[in-house]
Amino acid sequence: MKNALTSCGLLHRGMKPINWKVSGTDGDARAGTLTTRRSVIETPVFMPVGTQGSVKGVRFEWLENEIDAQIILGNTYHLFLRPGVETIRKLGGLHKFTSWNRSILTDSGGFQVFSLTDLRKLSEEGVEFRSHIDGAKCFLSPEISMEVQADLGAEIVMAFDECPPGDAGHEATRKSLELTARWAERSRKHFDRLADGLRPASLQSETVGLTGKQALFGIIQGAGHFDLRVESLERTVEIGFDGYAIGGLSVGEEKEVMYRVLEHTAPQMPTNAPRYLMGVGTPEDLLEAVSRGVDMFDCVLPTRNGRTGGVFTSRGKLNIRNAQFAEDENPLDPECACSVCQRYSRAYLRHLFQAGEMTAATLISHHNLAFYLDLMRKARGAIKESRFAKFKREFLEKIGDN
Amino acid sequence: MKNALTSCGLLHRGMKPINWKVSGTDGDARAGTLTTRRSVIETPVFMPVGTQGSVKGVRFEWLENEIDAQIILGNTYHLFLRPGVETIRKLGGLHKFTSWNRSILTDSGGFQVFSLTDLRKLSEEGVEFRSHIDGAKCFLSPEISMEVQADLGAEIVMAFDECPPGDAGHEATRKSLELTARWAERSRKHFDRLADGLRPASLQSETVGLTGKQALFGIIQGAGHFDLRVESLERTVEIGFDGYAIGGLSVGEEKEVMYRVLEHTAPQMPTNAPRYLMGVGTPEDLLEAVSRGVDMFDCVLPTRNGRTGGVFTSRGKLNIRNAQFAEDENPLDPECACSVCQRYSRAYLRHLFQAGEMTAATLISHHNLAFYLDLMRKARGAIKESRFAKFKREFLEKIGDN
Repeated sequence: MKNALTSCGLLHRGMKPINWKVSGTDGDARAGTLTTRRSVIETPVFMPVGTQGSVKGVRFEWLENEIDAQIILGNTYHLFLRPGVETIRKLGGLHKFTSWNRSILTDSGGFQVFSLTDLRKLSEEGVEFRSHIDGAKCFLSPEISMEVQADLGAEIVMAFDECPPGDAGHEATRKSLELTARWAERSRKHFDRLADGLRPASLQSETVGLTGKQALFGIIQGAGHFDLRVESLERTVEIGFDGYAIGGLSVGEEKEVMYRVLEHTAPQMPTNAPRYLMGVGTPEDLLEAVSRGVDMFDCVLPTRNGRTGGVFTSRGKLNIRNAQFAEDENPLDPECACSVCQRYSRAYLRHLFQAGEMTAATLISHHNLAFYLDLMRKARGAIKESRFAKFKREFLEKIGDN
Repeated sequence: MKNALTSCGLLHRGMKPINWKVSGTDGDARAGTLTTRRSVIETPVFMPVGTQGSVKGVRFEWLENEIDAQIILGNTYHLFLRPGVETIRKLGGLHKFTSWNRSILTDSGGFQVFSLTDLRKLSEEGVEFRSHIDGAKCFLSPEISMEVQADLGAEIVMAFDECPPGDAGHEATRKSLELTARWAERSRKHFDRLADGLRPASLQSETVGLTGKQALFGIIQGAGHFDLRVESLERTVEIGFDGYAIGGLSVGEEKEVMYRVLEHTAPQMPTNAPRYLMGVGTPEDLLEAVSRGVDMFDCVLPTRNGRTGGVFTSRGKLNIRNAQFAEDENPLDPECACSVCQRYSRAYLRHLFQAGEMTAATLISHHNLAFYLDLMRKARGAIKESRFAKFKREFLEKIGDN
């Protein structure tokens, strides 16, 4: 027999898809707890990027048992193109398909359409583009993005937005922002229709989105223009979302611009919802953003750098390809407790990298993720003990020493 | 104070570097136990190939904690060229350098010189060749190979041999075999000098070869010529080694030739020493060789196929790239207990492979190694219970069904 609660869409409106609790603040910095149906996420949190249903080079077992990631990212654009949402739906959604049972956040696909594809045709309705894989003509809109993300079944779904270039002028940014605002409304509306079970019958029967159990985050745009950021923030909050993201940063603008935008935007964001800075950044960026009130992050840096030999350490970055490490018996980061640093030497990892062994990328990516998640745990501890400013200052001094 | 036993080379001659015990036979097939200073190896055994100090795509942690490999292979040729024996010696030998603490067998470098390099100049003294990495002129001889392998510090060291092509004629094979026999004597002699502490002083002070604790295996050549195989066997046994290997098979000759050579050679090999078939082969090859009395194997197939999507299963081989697996929720091998088969579906692994995710290679290589090692454990069980012929017949029938 069908459970009355789960078959009645309207009741779900009363269910909270996520639970957010701020458990400590230190200046603008916050320590919080984000609970989804699948995991308890302590913030500030870094979410490893699992673009195509896999965190590049690092098996889920390590993410679960050692690195202890409670949430990872999935990219709607990539999964939409391959293996295709039809396949993922048939196989029971992204969690079942990939076997990752903790939380997932999916982006809307918008950012990748604007950064990875050519021949885009932008209209009020949505965006037509050609797949970067095979050139096939595709179309994404707020409604389609919501449907795809419902089928993927992540705990957190992102509104479909347009992301202008970092150096976009005021007029172009305003135009883009207004489109993003209209798309945000359409995203919200369609997300709610889906949550209310008003999906097209063809989709409904097979849905794996667990109606009512997904959260929807809105995205604040406005490039480097403070007034537009504020306007975007207000319009997004007016629509109302379960969480708020800052998009369109770290897209080519100066670091100082990013930090100032954060300073002007983050503290004004609702306190009763998580704040997510999309696609950012270096360890420094993370601490700067945390100090300005950001709770959630994702970025490809730890795994992308891992694949090219770039190592994040408590003494700054190092490149394992450097000849100086050829006979260096130290671990990547002597202060790191991860299984890579506990066992393998720089000399060995450099050798693997030089020899083209894929295990080099695997081990360095693993360490980098462990370093990022550990940094966020330490930041959290410092916030809760009201010593975040000192923690941040000492951390930045130390990585600058290198 | 130096221990009298370890400072006196002569005493070491009385110490057995390895211990070999046959604990069961079934026809020509044998179940044995090979004990080194680092691990207890139950045979028949498959040794994963760790060419450059890493088993491609599979972290040591999985090899230790799940796949349970007690011995892996290292390639002298590759390590000699990169990172170089000087570096490995400085860093304390191959075990310390790589952090692999169980047994290692190193080959002599001969086979790779003959298969990977151009511009070889073969002389009685040894072989001059150009590095496949940077074209640098290099030289290997029985003496140099023994010195390099002493510095690498593996538990089992291979004599330096010449490997003729699989289709070499009788005369060419005899000539090659005689060179191999003279090189075997020189290998033995120089190995013993090193073991007796008579190494050049420049090497001795830094040695990590743990004098007296390495075993030396001789190699039987002779291509597809039975009379020459027997002659090579007799000459090798006359010199006297801790174990005996069959080289020069699976180098392009017909399967039937290989099986017949094994049938004529393996059962005649000394019973009181392990028998090692070098560089072979498929699961079928392994069982055919076990049935003819072989104890040890190595081969790149499980990891090389893993990287190209080739999967070994109890129902035969499958290629994960095949479109038929796009929505297949079954594990790679429903009869396999490995962590990959317990968790991941064919559909997911195919997706990872198609999407170019390196984790595809990692997971399939892991499964393939688990499959190989498990096959050897099952063969051992069958031998000990005198049902090996039945086990082999049923296994071959089943993989043929596919």
